[in-house]
Amino acid sequence: MKAAMYPGSFDPVTNGHVDIITRASKVFDKLVVVVMKNSAKNPLFSQEERVRLIEEATSHLDNVQVDMYDDLLIRYAKEKNVNIVVKGLRAVSDFESEFQMAQINRKLYPNIETLFLNTSTEYSYLSSSIVKEIYRYDGDIKPLVPDNVYKIMKDRK
Amino acid sequence: MKAAMYPGSFDPVTNGHVDIITRASKVFDKLVVVVMKNSAKNPLFSQEERVRLIEEATSHLDNVQVDMYDDLLIRYAKEKNVNIVVKGLRAVSDFESEFQMAQINRKLYPNIETLFLNTSTEYSYLSSSIVKEIYRYDGDIKPLVPDNVYKIMKDRK
Amino acid sequence: MKAAMYPGSFDPVTNGHVDIITRASKVFDKLVVVVMKNSAKNPLFSQEERVRLIEEATSHLDNVQVDMYDDLLIRYAKEKNVNIVVKGLRAVSDFESEFQMAQINRKLYPNIETLFLNTSTEYSYLSSSIVKEIYRYDGDIKPLVPDNVYKIMKDRK
Amino acid sequence: MKAAMYPGSFDPVTNGHVDIITRASKVFDKLVVVVMKNSAKNPLFSQEERVRLIEEATSHLDNVQVDMYDDLLIRYAKEKNVNIVVKGLRAVSDFESEFQMAQINRKLYPNIETLFLNTSTEYSYLSSSIVKEIYRYDGDIKPLVPDNVYKIMKDRK
Amino acid sequence: MKAAMYPGSFDPVTNGHVDIITRASKVFDKLVVVVMKNSAKNPLFSQEERVRLIEEATSHLDNVQVDMYDDLLIRYAKEKNVNIVVKGLRAVSDFESEFQMAQINRKLYPNIETLFLNTSTEYSYLSSSIVKEIYRYDGDIKPLVPDNVYKIMKDRK
Amino acid sequence: MKAAMYPGSFDPVTNGHVDIITRASKVFDKLVVVVMKNSAKNPLFSQEERVRLIEEATSHLDNVQVDMYDDLLIRYAKEKNVNIVVKGLRAVSDFESEFQMAQINRKLYPNIETLFLNTSTEYSYLSSSIVKEIYRYDGDIKPLVPDNVYKIMKDRK
Repeated sequence: MKAAMYPGSFDPVTNGHVDIITRASKVFDKLVVVVMKNSAKNPLFSQEERVRLIEEATSHLDNVQVDMYDDLLIRYAKEKNVNIVVKGLRAVSDFESEFQMAQINRKLYPNIETLFLNTSTEYSYLSSSIVKEIYRYDGDIKPLVPDNVYKIMKDRK
Repeated sequence: MKAAMYPGSFDPVTNGHVDIITRASKVFDKLVVVVMKNSAKNPLFSQEERVRLIEEATSHLDNVQVDMYDDLLIRYAKEKNVNIVVKGLRAVSDFESEFQMAQINRKLYPNIETLFLNTSTEYSYLSSSIVKEIYRYDGDIKPLVPDNVYKIMKDRK
Repeated sequence: MKAAMYPGSFDPVTNGHVDIITRASKVFDKLVVVVMKNSAKNPLFSQEERVRLIEEATSHLDNVQVDMYDDLLIRYAKEKNVNIVVKGLRAVSDFESEFQMAQINRKLYPNIETLFLNTSTEYSYLSSSIVKEIYRYDGDIKPLVPDNVYKIMKDRK
Repeated sequence: MKAAMYPGSFDPVTNGHVDIITRASKVFDKLVVVVMKNSAKNPLFSQEERVRLIEEATSHLDNVQVDMYDDLLIRYAKEKNVNIVVKGLRAVSDFESEFQMAQINRKLYPNIETLFLNTSTEYSYLSSSIVKEIYRYDGDIKPLVPDNVYKIMKDRK
Repeated sequence: MKAAMYPGSFDPVTNGHVDIITRASKVFDKLVVVVMKNSAKNPLFSQEERVRLIEEATSHLDNVQVDMYDDLLIRYAKEKNVNIVVKGLRAVSDFESEFQMAQINRKLYPNIETLFLNTSTEYSYLSSSIVKEIYRYDGDIKPLVPDNVYKIMKDRK
Repeated sequence: MKAAMYPGSFDPVTNGHVDIITRASKVFDKLVVVVMKNSAKNPLFSQEERVRLIEEATSHLDNVQVDMYDDLLIRYAKEKNVNIVVKGLRAVSDFESEFQMAQINRKLYPNIETLFLNTSTEYSYLSSSIVKEIYRYDGDIKPLVPDNVYKIMKDRK
């Protein structure tokens, strides 16, 4: 069985992330979404909340699990024996930073392999940071995030 | 009448900005330079000062106005009924971040349209941040900014 | 009145071109689509046919005209007194070649000004060459080109 | 069982290709290398020769097969029911052309999914064209291609 | 003594090339401009003419020589014992192809080292191809090439 | 005699930096590594420690010196009469920021000239920041930095 993981901070999960999760879940037998600690000081959602929001938004996908982790990704790979990493690429700037990360991971742990999917064109502009910036100015984030994320963000205002 | 806006933080306005303002003022019937709040904690100039410095530096351009705003750009577009945004592009890195911004703005407000001008080659290296860095080290910023900006920055030292 | 031109070879015009034409026609008082000779040896359509196909596909846009030209673009600008050029940008590779062209045009004729629109995300992969390649292999080009282009291409097979 | 295909013209197969094949063969249950007709007029090797050279160079990889095809890739996907495409990315220029191809393929056949691996750093400069250019000038291609390709190319001189 | 070479096809030499030659001649004790055969079928100038045109345009630079060569650059490096290559970079697209070439050269001949200079901003749009395209349409190439090149091209019309 | 400088913050020096130093030391008669103050608040090593670590790691290179400086690079160039700057380029993102810096330096001090070397492919993913991030998580940095840096970092844990 081929299992893959999709790591990120997902603060919050966007429609772009759900698109990658949905497509990657068809490519691999099992997909684990791994919620990493957000390096930013004040995350919008706690790591536990982010796990739950992704679980809800992907509950219709049988082979998707959600986990959380706070250490180097290659340690997670070794512990769980999941050596395939999936990442979404939106643009050239993503490309370079993600490729550096993929190369350093292989240098430190040769068994790990990173595969990239291109973000669907309708989400090519979308990121968690952009969602948060629009949210801060009371802009309409409904078309950008899953319904459950939209509701909880609206309630918190 | 076709009015356009040119948003930015302009802290401070550079010769590169004035080049874009001058060229865009010939393309559109009216151009409004919109000074946005600088997200950095300690701006060099207050928003009011930045407005005045641009007004002085563009006083010879009859169809240019300067305004300030602190909210989402699409709200300014709706309030003032100015649906054309002008931005300068210097390099590939500008290209991607500006295109993301243009796409998200159209997603949130389909009437808005962003047009890009390429920065003149002689200013392709120039940014407000670079001006401030050279200024911090007492480097010569005279060739980089309009005269009025140069004088006020020199006096403040 | 601010008139702009949108030059290209349009062999054939795609939905991506029509998207740029539609959006640019709202920004300028008048838009002239200028069909340039295709430098490729065996164009799919003659220059006259390409003009007609664009006229049909944009007949609902009152301020859009279609013209053809075989010389340097800056000569057309001088002859017709249309000094604004509109171009669509899809990706970084477009960005560099188009910026070079815009810079050389301004070097040769300082009055000319090029403005760029980003191609809508749903057409970011689309080009006349890709349409022709799919067509050559009997792939379905219906979602990629205007209806009139689709019909004439289908009939010719 | 998850099968993937790795399409290309492979004229000739390089060490960079073999690196991608080796790594992709660990990610998927089965990998089919699909040798496409080379669009260039005078290929170095016939399509049949290219198939055989890849078969020899990957004979130690049990789950790798080699096939050939001359039509749209999405037709191969439908015929063989292999909906996962693997591609190697070396640099930004690859990134854009490959992403366009992946997007157009999904537009024409939504079931198809393209995954990208970054070429190992030691092969980031390598392509079939560069091998042929060095070969044409009698340069040493031994470090660039598999042994069997090296021998046959040397013999042909 | 540190000698470097600056290879290219220079068909014709432009003001951008002369800028790189001038600046590189200050960095190295001796600079050899190496005119390579143009791979295009119909060059504007013969290899001998191109050598002479560069010699004339750089006659004021004492430590610059002009040579011609038709084989792999690394063979020239070995024969002449000149292991430093200088190249100009204008844009991201140059960057990738030039870096590939530099890497393959070092792979084939580890003693060779390529150093890059950024083209001066006022020439960032300039290339021999653009000069030839403007020339073909009787555009004004005077500001783009050295005087001697301008005269000979004008006379040939 | 042609002297060049290689400026950076080197916090800490990596195998990628040593690769550039080694190769540049063959190109120029003398190479001065200039350790600039790290703009980050909490550097891993003091400026003096960074100087010493580079001196140790490059002690086998006779024509390499290490210096430190806290002001604009062009002032160092004037004071020491070293007008050649060497920089390593890893990727497109480096390219643009380094070219901006080179252009602004020439604008402020026309005598200064920046030359770029491409980082060897095996270090193309490597940076001081990545070393520090892996170190923070107790990852293995042994293959990424010189031995003396590895030892001192391990002892400090």
